Amino acid sequence: MQPQLEEVEARVAQQAAAFDPAIEGYVTYAIGSRGKRLRPLMALLSGGASGSITSGHLDLAVIVELIHIATLVHDDIMDEAERRRAQPTVNARWGNSLSVLLGDCLFAQALNLSTNFDNAEISRVIARAAREVCSGEIIQTQRRFDLHLAIDEYLRIVEMKTGSLFAAAAELGAVLNQADVETTRALKTFGSKIGAAYQIYDDCLDIAGNENEIGKTLGTDLRKGKMTLPILMLLRSAPAEERERYCELILSEQTSAIAHLLQSEAPNGALRSSLDAADESVRDAQSELHALPPNLFTDSLFQLGDALREMLDQVRV
Amino acid sequence: MQPQLEEVEARVAQQAAAFDPAIEGYVTYAIGSRGKRLRPLMALLSGGASGSITSGHLDLAVIVELIHIATLVHDDIMDEAERRRAQPTVNARWGNSLSVLLGDCLFAQALNLSTNFDNAEISRVIARAAREVCSGEIIQTQRRFDLHLAIDEYLRIVEMKTGSLFAAAAELGAVLNQADVETTRALKTFGSKIGAAYQIYDDCLDIAGNENEIGKTLGTDLRKGKMTLPILMLLRSAPAEERERYCELILSEQTSAIAHLLQSEAPNGALRSSLDAADESVRDAQSELHALPPNLFTDSLFQLGDALREMLDQVRV
Repeated sequence: MQPQLEEVEARVAQQAAAFDPAIEGYVTYAIGSRGKRLRPLMALLSGGASGSITSGHLDLAVIVELIHIATLVHDDIMDEAERRRAQPTVNARWGNSLSVLLGDCLFAQALNLSTNFDNAEISRVIARAAREVCSGEIIQTQRRFDLHLAIDEYLRIVEMKTGSLFAAAAELGAVLNQADVETTRALKTFGSKIGAAYQIYDDCLDIAGNENEIGKTLGTDLRKGKMTLPILMLLRSAPAEERERYCELILSEQTSAIAHLLQSEAPNGALRSSLDAADESVRDAQSELHALPPNLFTDSLFQLGDALREMLDQVRV
Repeated sequence: MQPQLEEVEARVAQQAAAFDPAIEGYVTYAIGSRGKRLRPLMALLSGGASGSITSGHLDLAVIVELIHIATLVHDDIMDEAERRRAQPTVNARWGNSLSVLLGDCLFAQALNLSTNFDNAEISRVIARAAREVCSGEIIQTQRRFDLHLAIDEYLRIVEMKTGSLFAAAAELGAVLNQADVETTRALKTFGSKIGAAYQIYDDCLDIAGNENEIGKTLGTDLRKGKMTLPILMLLRSAPAEERERYCELILSEQTSAIAHLLQSEAPNGALRSSLDAADESVRDAQSELHALPPNLFTDSLFQLGDALREMLDQVRV
């Protein structure tokens, strides 16, 4: 896997050259802060599991990562984030206007690349996934500080804003191999459920992680009014009189008090239940893999799930 | 033309239904403030001039308009604009975060629609045009308050940020009719030059128009540090001692003093020269039409140029 991931990295880096020289530097900066490249990994492993990893899979990996980076650039504007992966964010460095436009550019370039495939279905799935990601984020924005957000609604937001791009990476990995309908469906569902689980993990980490270990400011979701699963679980299962106090803490953005509550596990195991929900999503994803031809890459997909389950365990108190 | 434009209007309105119900309302709001629909007109007339106006041309018209609307939503964030076409802007009404995401959604939907064509070239040209529009705006943002911006550089920005989407509309109008290479090239150049001329017109209007007649706040470009053609012309041809005073007025954003200077025409006819440049771009565009089959739609494209020339004349003092 490593050589292919290196090649994806090289192709991502080459993307800067597709832009006007005046813009190249910003693009290099935005794509350079090496992330986890989970979506590229999903595209490649899906390719391997459903046939073989072709040059088209490497391009697909680049496309999904560019879309992800574009959404991060825009997210950082909305969150007024100062740092990402120990570097100043694009907005912190060059302001919001440039960030809006740079995100748009990266997004346009991803869609431009997707039109290089003979199969128009690739572009269609990519464009729809991008629409889903943004739609999920709009709904999340709409429901800020909404203490009545149902857990189902939260799960739907998570599937839209994170699951859909993972799902597209996995689905298209199979489409590029002209895999059969069942294989394609199974991989798409796998991607969606892994993506959703990863988002729940990230949401739990934001409220209950250890800032020193993680190296980023925590509690940002709550400060921005994002009602994440541990918060919703805390509210759902609390006795009426406690619930009122929790609501006050949330609305007055007392992040550390809430984090303390969740970590002490005194109230109702809200953090544990949230991590359990993510764990279940991973296991659902893994169960989809039975539909796939058994091979090394299918095994790797399963192990990707196991790795995520371990990460979930590390957030448990 | 009117029935086809009405049909485009109906199809644009239908786009809202492609989104999640939670988002539909915002989309309806953003697409509802009926603009001039110049880019759809370009797509349709180009179709007529190069063959016939098919249902594909109506879809193309919807796509270019959606991309235009997406860029307006993002522009209004960057300009901190409060009103557009006598309505509160999306950002004024629902904040910047929602506006960033809504623009992204509209853009993704436009690209999604473009994948419905059998010919992947359509999506490719659309995605590239979108990248050009944003790249042009990035360069413009970079060069804010840059008194040394060359007129050629300004013209390049204008071609990128406005010309490229007009060019794509006109080019693809021909591509959909499988027109020959020369017809396609001529229409693309026509679109680019009309787009550029329209942007210069808009830039002149912002500094020298009559606020009461136009119904929007003027002088915004200067306040945002956008170095537009009349400003650049004013600086270029001014005697050294005057130039310094003008620079001070620009950097201290004294819009009305600059507007007065341009309108009094005392200094050097900077406004006139700018309008002349736009007029020349229109005439260049019109001269491309000789390469097209003579028909009613080719005539209409010529008249579109004449209408723009009249608009330019109305800004003259």
